[in-house]
Amino acid sequence: MTDPDVDPPKGARPVGRRAGESGTREDILDAALTLFAERGFDGASMRAIADAAGVDPALIRHFFTDKPSLFAAAMAAHSEIPQRMAEAVSGDPGQLGRRVAEAYLTLWDDAELGPVLQGLVRSAVTSEHGGELVAEALFSQMSKVPEVAAAPPEATRGVALAGAHLMGVALARNVLGLSAFTGMSREELVEAVAPSIQRYLSPLVERRASNDDGPGA
Amino acid sequence: MTDPDVDPPKGARPVGRRAGESGTREDILDAALTLFAERGFDGASMRAIADAAGVDPALIRHFFTDKPSLFAAAMAAHSEIPQRMAEAVSGDPGQLGRRVAEAYLTLWDDAELGPVLQGLVRSAVTSEHGGELVAEALFSQMSKVPEVAAAPPEATRGVALAGAHLMGVALARNVLGLSAFTGMSREELVEAVAPSIQRYLSPLVERRASNDDGPGA
Repeated sequence: MTDPDVDPPKGARPVGRRAGESGTREDILDAALTLFAERGFDGASMRAIADAAGVDPALIRHFFTDKPSLFAAAMAAHSEIPQRMAEAVSGDPGQLGRRVAEAYLTLWDDAELGPVLQGLVRSAVTSEHGGELVAEALFSQMSKVPEVAAAPPEATRGVALAGAHLMGVALARNVLGLSAFTGMSREELVEAVAPSIQRYLSPLVERRASNDDGPGA
Repeated sequence: MTDPDVDPPKGARPVGRRAGESGTREDILDAALTLFAERGFDGASMRAIADAAGVDPALIRHFFTDKPSLFAAAMAAHSEIPQRMAEAVSGDPGQLGRRVAEAYLTLWDDAELGPVLQGLVRSAVTSEHGGELVAEALFSQMSKVPEVAAAPPEATRGVALAGAHLMGVALARNVLGLSAFTGMSREELVEAVAPSIQRYLSPLVERRASNDDGPGA
């Protein structure tokens, strides 16, 4: 979604903002993401988001209908997450577990994205409604990768298990700050979990292999 | 509150109560566990716990010194958790991963314990202070098993990774209620994660094997 023709200045990577789109819709998405992260799904009112974006609440409803839809759009607009996970899924099947673990844990360690993800997890855990939504936003970014979306049920289940495992690690390391996890480098952690993630994602790899062999697909 | 000499009605198994101890200290622990689960670590004041137990706050400080110590004592008094995890650790080393996964996920699915654990996780995720404490209470029950406590660093790390994985699954299934997890029976879930838990806990098994072989230990 970012414009590949325009290199953003290093370190000033825009979050949730895409070049070449008019400001208002993007302003709403930026404000929504910030407030959802800070206050949680239930705590961020449509009015507060409208105020932060400097627009009328009616305009938010015009663009996004309701709060769940706005939330989903705000996470999708956070284009780095699905893009990075999609990159991790493609490539050498034998290193799939390592790449996915590395990509996921890197998102959580990112100075800019990390706090947003932490806020979203807090929101998911405490909200009556946000759980499924936030979890979808967090781990189902991977299920939007076409290869994953087209996968058979046992592969989908594997993606969910890989997601839960990585979420548990991110929770321990980046939310709870447990010393057993903060005391490991990201590389050590990736090394430790990669075989499990590889095992859970193996039905994806097997499918890809059979598609490569088979006609069409 | 409950009398150990009277058979509790089915489904009303006493939580945190051990037979043969005098009421007051146990009343405080019961009240503390209930309030920590309901209101989180920060939200449960010593005064509220004292009120719920029908004692003076000074008596709580006499027994438990401060809130973190009370919290730790309340979790320890929840004697089923460490006991069940200890039982899971002993037995056929080849089935260790399966037994630990089964024991852990059974605690979360328990009608009585489940909501307490859910409340504690909410508390850990949202509290500034509770994280390490609650996590310790939740997963380090296993590290109190003598076999685990005496383990070398690589085994301790494996226990942490197994804990994070199982915590991620419990979060997805019992806190967020994600359909990919609620749609699986506990048996299917245990089957799916057991090999990963076994892999993480293998340094424990190897140690046990070498202790069995070696002189003394």
